[in-house]
Amino acid sequence: MTQNIAILGASGYTGAELARIIATHPSMRITALSGDRKAGMSMGEVFPHLRHMNLPDLVKIEEIDFSTIDLAFCALPHATSQAVIKELPRDLKVVDLSADFRLRDPAEYEKWYGKPHAAVELQKEAVYGLTEFYRDEIRTARLCAGTGCNAAAGQYALRPLIEAGVIDLDEIIIDLKAGVSGAGRSLKENLLHAELSGGTMPYSAGGKHRHLGEFDQEFSKIAGRDVRVQFTPHLMPFNRGILATVYVRGEPQAIYDAMSRRYADEVFLEVLPFGTLPSTRSIAGSNYVHVGVVGDRLPGRALVMVALDNLCKGSSGQAIQNANLMLGLEETAGLMLAPVFP
Amino acid sequence: MTQNIAILGASGYTGAELARIIATHPSMRITALSGDRKAGMSMGEVFPHLRHMNLPDLVKIEEIDFSTIDLAFCALPHATSQAVIKELPRDLKVVDLSADFRLRDPAEYEKWYGKPHAAVELQKEAVYGLTEFYRDEIRTARLCAGTGCNAAAGQYALRPLIEAGVIDLDEIIIDLKAGVSGAGRSLKENLLHAELSGGTMPYSAGGKHRHLGEFDQEFSKIAGRDVRVQFTPHLMPFNRGILATVYVRGEPQAIYDAMSRRYADEVFLEVLPFGTLPSTRSIAGSNYVHVGVVGDRLPGRALVMVALDNLCKGSSGQAIQNANLMLGLEETAGLMLAPVFP
Amino acid sequence: MTQNIAILGASGYTGAELARIIATHPSMRITALSGDRKAGMSMGEVFPHLRHMNLPDLVKIEEIDFSTIDLAFCALPHATSQAVIKELPRDLKVVDLSADFRLRDPAEYEKWYGKPHAAVELQKEAVYGLTEFYRDEIRTARLCAGTGCNAAAGQYALRPLIEAGVIDLDEIIIDLKAGVSGAGRSLKENLLHAELSGGTMPYSAGGKHRHLGEFDQEFSKIAGRDVRVQFTPHLMPFNRGILATVYVRGEPQAIYDAMSRRYADEVFLEVLPFGTLPSTRSIAGSNYVHVGVVGDRLPGRALVMVALDNLCKGSSGQAIQNANLMLGLEETAGLMLAPVFP
Amino acid sequence: MTQNIAILGASGYTGAELARIIATHPSMRITALSGDRKAGMSMGEVFPHLRHMNLPDLVKIEEIDFSTIDLAFCALPHATSQAVIKELPRDLKVVDLSADFRLRDPAEYEKWYGKPHAAVELQKEAVYGLTEFYRDEIRTARLCAGTGCNAAAGQYALRPLIEAGVIDLDEIIIDLKAGVSGAGRSLKENLLHAELSGGTMPYSAGGKHRHLGEFDQEFSKIAGRDVRVQFTPHLMPFNRGILATVYVRGEPQAIYDAMSRRYADEVFLEVLPFGTLPSTRSIAGSNYVHVGVVGDRLPGRALVMVALDNLCKGSSGQAIQNANLMLGLEETAGLMLAPVFP
Repeated sequence: MTQNIAILGASGYTGAELARIIATHPSMRITALSGDRKAGMSMGEVFPHLRHMNLPDLVKIEEIDFSTIDLAFCALPHATSQAVIKELPRDLKVVDLSADFRLRDPAEYEKWYGKPHAAVELQKEAVYGLTEFYRDEIRTARLCAGTGCNAAAGQYALRPLIEAGVIDLDEIIIDLKAGVSGAGRSLKENLLHAELSGGTMPYSAGGKHRHLGEFDQEFSKIAGRDVRVQFTPHLMPFNRGILATVYVRGEPQAIYDAMSRRYADEVFLEVLPFGTLPSTRSIAGSNYVHVGVVGDRLPGRALVMVALDNLCKGSSGQAIQNANLMLGLEETAGLMLAPVFP
Repeated sequence: MTQNIAILGASGYTGAELARIIATHPSMRITALSGDRKAGMSMGEVFPHLRHMNLPDLVKIEEIDFSTIDLAFCALPHATSQAVIKELPRDLKVVDLSADFRLRDPAEYEKWYGKPHAAVELQKEAVYGLTEFYRDEIRTARLCAGTGCNAAAGQYALRPLIEAGVIDLDEIIIDLKAGVSGAGRSLKENLLHAELSGGTMPYSAGGKHRHLGEFDQEFSKIAGRDVRVQFTPHLMPFNRGILATVYVRGEPQAIYDAMSRRYADEVFLEVLPFGTLPSTRSIAGSNYVHVGVVGDRLPGRALVMVALDNLCKGSSGQAIQNANLMLGLEETAGLMLAPVFP
Repeated sequence: MTQNIAILGASGYTGAELARIIATHPSMRITALSGDRKAGMSMGEVFPHLRHMNLPDLVKIEEIDFSTIDLAFCALPHATSQAVIKELPRDLKVVDLSADFRLRDPAEYEKWYGKPHAAVELQKEAVYGLTEFYRDEIRTARLCAGTGCNAAAGQYALRPLIEAGVIDLDEIIIDLKAGVSGAGRSLKENLLHAELSGGTMPYSAGGKHRHLGEFDQEFSKIAGRDVRVQFTPHLMPFNRGILATVYVRGEPQAIYDAMSRRYADEVFLEVLPFGTLPSTRSIAGSNYVHVGVVGDRLPGRALVMVALDNLCKGSSGQAIQNANLMLGLEETAGLMLAPVFP
Repeated sequence: MTQNIAILGASGYTGAELARIIATHPSMRITALSGDRKAGMSMGEVFPHLRHMNLPDLVKIEEIDFSTIDLAFCALPHATSQAVIKELPRDLKVVDLSADFRLRDPAEYEKWYGKPHAAVELQKEAVYGLTEFYRDEIRTARLCAGTGCNAAAGQYALRPLIEAGVIDLDEIIIDLKAGVSGAGRSLKENLLHAELSGGTMPYSAGGKHRHLGEFDQEFSKIAGRDVRVQFTPHLMPFNRGILATVYVRGEPQAIYDAMSRRYADEVFLEVLPFGTLPSTRSIAGSNYVHVGVVGDRLPGRALVMVALDNLCKGSSGQAIQNANLMLGLEETAGLMLAPVFP
């Protein structure tokens, strides 16, 4: 049975990516789209690449009749999301793509996002959306909180290793290269083509990036003790893709084995042969994740490298994977799209 | 019923694009892949983005048992293709993506490609693969010749106008911007990132580009007289996409109407509202074509602009569309993939 | 003797390019910089690539003591420029980089820029800044109006041909590919990396681009009759460089000869061997212009191709070339910087 | 007095970059250029961006009369260089840009480059070309060995800190992002625009990159004990620029102070304000180096980030800086070119 889908905040990149995937999803149909500043416009004007889909026009959220909706994706900006979701019908299934429900602890939320959470009770209810690690909870969730795209990359690299106890928890460095679409469709000088193309620079270096809140929460939970990693993202002159280069201490082969075992049955996680290095080009446009492990010349040190598409597996693809579970559909439905290369 | 597919010349970009589309095609299964220099390698080594498909390893053509194959895509280099296809079983359905069977006249072939055709009888049999204009012939064809990618772009812009008699046949200029993947995976200095990125230049200017052979053949056939266009391709610093900016003489509104009428029922051809300009970004990764028409400030002059993805609609997507017809499948099967943006 | 230079509107790309060139100019010293919204900031904060120059901080225009200034470059937005220059000391030499003083006829200005000119008397006084064609007037000018960057490219291609009478004045098409820095440092969605990179699209097609005002004025003046060209710019996914592909009617050899003769003594204009095609990559970062001529397969038709750097020769390099003349310096002073490749 | 300069191996990128800089160098004149495979071609054919310089044609090395040459830059491939330099006149000043004379220990050379050194006596004579740290030796050198471009970036980040004793020598990780021109003008599949643009991947990860030989040699020498760092380069989709993100243990402020002190008098080294992050865009096209230091949220840990242009300061600019010293010229002559942005 086809599910009726609403996308709130459809004029941003994650909204567009949801629509792109749903275009060939066998059991989802978009029946409502909201976009506050662009309400009244057709989706084909806002995103000409979707014009063939003949989608409904963008409306304001309050114009949507949610009684006909089976599931709503909420692709609104951080902070806006919690205010909107609080007002939605309490029995509506919601997959949120913002940062609003990723952190369980209100104090942590306030620390990283600079103001108190406005929907603390929902925060408690929300299930963290890293599918391969929260599958059962997501299946029965009403509200699922999408992970940060960088946070997803780092966790795919590290969770199996922390679970297996094969790395030193005090010596973890995540050097991350992030495609620019992760910054959204926002009008900032540093996101202009003339400023960004042809070079790179770090940002939020030294422990300032908000996705550290997710790392702290999740890694500490698995380890049963506080884990604090170093994390340096770099803004990359390409549109899609994250490469996380993760420096760890442990035996490379044990690390590789733990990784391979953990992801052996996961459709979207491809552990490359030992020593093979992943490229973001090999997963762009898809829900696949490539994981590489290589030992260092220094004994007891290894590198784990993860490549995923920030908009797809890091955001909208993950969201649809979770929605599939919440709606009782095949988990991979609509998500088997192959990466686009070259 | 699932069709068994072979891809000959699978280590190039059009081969990879065929595999990408077939990954989610409901009725095709790849059962053989050839790649001469890379025979013995796995497809995942040659194209890591396809490793999740668990495709057969690359073999030499002579190792393939064609009795089990329903249709072969031939993605070999120009000139190689004719030699190979000549040796294939005479009842095997073949879609050729090379230039070898595009021109019907052996003299024209020799003029543009510099040597005599080695399979003249097959050349006669081949059907030209511009689906929307040769649909019926393709349906019953044994051998279908894929069009040039630039040739497809120019024809989508001009065929409806020549058919409708709304433009001056002696005043046609095609200024074309072509993404670099159209040049294939060949090791040439001018295709290196360091040489190509960050700028543009024309190539084969002044009437030297081989796709002119197709323009001459097709436009003259429609017009019932010789038609010779000007055509200047430019090498673009992006991977996918062709934009053809076509300068014509005629009444803009009549041109727009002829275009709209002709493509009204075509799934993959989107005629934008009058005056709207297409972008290659809006069709990349898909089989869609965006067509724009705008009048010039000079009376009696207009511009027609066509954007398509050279690897998909201009080559491998077109090939699958034609294969669908030849195999009695739904014409659009596997091809409804939405464009990838951003 | 070192000349004291002010740059008004130094926080934009043409302002930065002026500073870059002056960094190694033997006879210019920047003594004042203005930037309204960024007044109070250091130039190193606004443009980190210039931090080593230890430039004066940005101030508001009214804070500058113009009595110590030998020449002011005015790199302000269109329309702002005329208001500002009107208030400057009447004996201050000014090179304006905006569009405000390019058109001599107030009616034409209003037609293309949508409102009446606010400094009509200055408009009369201003000398058009295409150095190679207005050298003598510029030498004695007080106010020099920089050309449009696209307008410069088109004129370098066509002026010698119109002067020599070797082309048909009614059959001129300029298909232009323009690097994104020509659009300035403005926060527009279509200038974001995520939107612009990886593809191309036309803009202002059909006779709407303002630089047509310059073409109309200049070509008609040379020809002694109205000349109206077709002009289609395309936004390119690179930062610097314009390629103008110009379609003309005439004998290719005569066209080439006229071109070669006209530019034989010009330091910055390089006419490539007949049939050689220019690339924007070969002039980026420099004041050089590459000009190519090739005959078409259709008799009596030719293509002229011009590549220049929109920020340098198309704007700030040109401005400094003109300033050199106005200040009695060597015309090429500071401008012999070689192009940057790769 | 103008110095006569030869460039051996002028058809590669470092050769072109030498010519670009010499174009505006006050005291150097190129009088001979060699390029084996391209001997007989004009430099304007090989590098159209240099055509205005009217350089001598490329010849074979044996055709050059070295008696008229004051200094030769040797921009030949690794291994070729040692064979060629061995045959040059013993009193000719030579700046080598290859890897052949960077390592002092023949065993280390063989370990990293896979075969015995063919000119061991020259290897002993060569002075390591990191100007700011070997200035006096270079001034009197006959043969100067240019550093690896990545090796330069890592050393600018770490030498002052090792000298000052402010970091833990056993806990150093260099995560490096390298523009593609560092790989030279070689025809490799992974360097094609279609393969490289739009994404990133690591290479030589885990301690395999040859520049580790330089790190080992230099850092151990300074420290007076063995120092072994981790080093992971990543291939970047841009042409110029290296960003080294270096993870160290020590007090951030002490690190910053050591850095600032060490580079206080260095013209080309800009230590940014504490906490400010460098961008490769801010140094591209120039000989400047931007250095940033930021503390991590984890006490006792810091990041040092270095941005430089691999072709200029990392190779040809460095070579000219060293040549200036060897020729008794002003060290900065010809090198004050400002970075090119945007």
